[in-house]
Amino acid sequence: MNQVIDRTLRLEKLTAEVFAPFGDVIEAAGAGSFDFNRGMARRFHDLARTEATGDGRIGVSIGRAQPYRLPLALDMVERHPLGSQAFVPLGRDPFVVIVAPDEGGHPGRPRAFVTAPGQGVNYLRNVWHGVLTPLDRPADFLIVDRIGTGVNLEEHRFEEPWAVVA
Amino acid sequence: MNQVIDRTLRLEKLTAEVFAPFGDVIEAAGAGSFDFNRGMARRFHDLARTEATGDGRIGVSIGRAQPYRLPLALDMVERHPLGSQAFVPLGRDPFVVIVAPDEGGHPGRPRAFVTAPGQGVNYLRNVWHGVLTPLDRPADFLIVDRIGTGVNLEEHRFEEPWAVVA
Repeated sequence: MNQVIDRTLRLEKLTAEVFAPFGDVIEAAGAGSFDFNRGMARRFHDLARTEATGDGRIGVSIGRAQPYRLPLALDMVERHPLGSQAFVPLGRDPFVVIVAPDEGGHPGRPRAFVTAPGQGVNYLRNVWHGVLTPLDRPADFLIVDRIGTGVNLEEHRFEEPWAVVA
Repeated sequence: MNQVIDRTLRLEKLTAEVFAPFGDVIEAAGAGSFDFNRGMARRFHDLARTEATGDGRIGVSIGRAQPYRLPLALDMVERHPLGSQAFVPLGRDPFVVIVAPDEGGHPGRPRAFVTAPGQGVNYLRNVWHGVLTPLDRPADFLIVDRIGTGVNLEEHRFEEPWAVVA
């Protein structure tokens, strides 16, 4: 007899603490900040544990993503064995962030978060995560990730989808 | 008798072509784009010639900058000998971008640009540039630059300021 698993993922609030095992929350907050430009600007410093292995370098791209609607069926997650990957929204709309712990090379039970306006995320190298998921309307994101050769994508398809709900 | 130099810098439109010797214009444009996430997103790929020398890595920070008003007196530019530095606005307000060619270790005549909404810039390593200069109201920028040890700042103070005008 199979164990019955609740496949509903309820959106959680995204905070740096709870997200730390998976990556970084990129936002203008935290203690590591200092003034520059003769006091005309403040720098919230080094917000993402960027990493590029092999012959890659960390580069800058823009992702323009179509929106999803809740409840959404999560049937796949992916990870990048060669580098980190950050997404920072270029607008103020919240978006959905899905991650999963690794359990022996496969994703365990995922967790789904919704960002506060302006929050971005950085996925650590090799962390299972969902695709770029704005809600309601299209959104642009700055992507800061590894650019280089080599196989840097691993996908996992779930036999049965998870349901992400508000 | 001294040569009379016109010290007025009139704001120019920022385009990738004209800015190329100094760095990159970061915007959702250009031929190097492709679909991802099963066609739900489009990636404008590798928009900045990021570079980090020595023991540094390219990292992510946020800069919160106070605004300036035109005409503005430009009395200083700076450059970073160890790495590139990108600024991408997290809102849609234009900002002023000032760069100068190097002439034997000193900045030559600067050029001043104003961005279109959404445009960001990446300064190449060792390119003379002005400080973060939003207009009218404060603005947040994602900063993608070298993080590491070593002396990565060189400043040049002009004997006489330049006047940046609209």
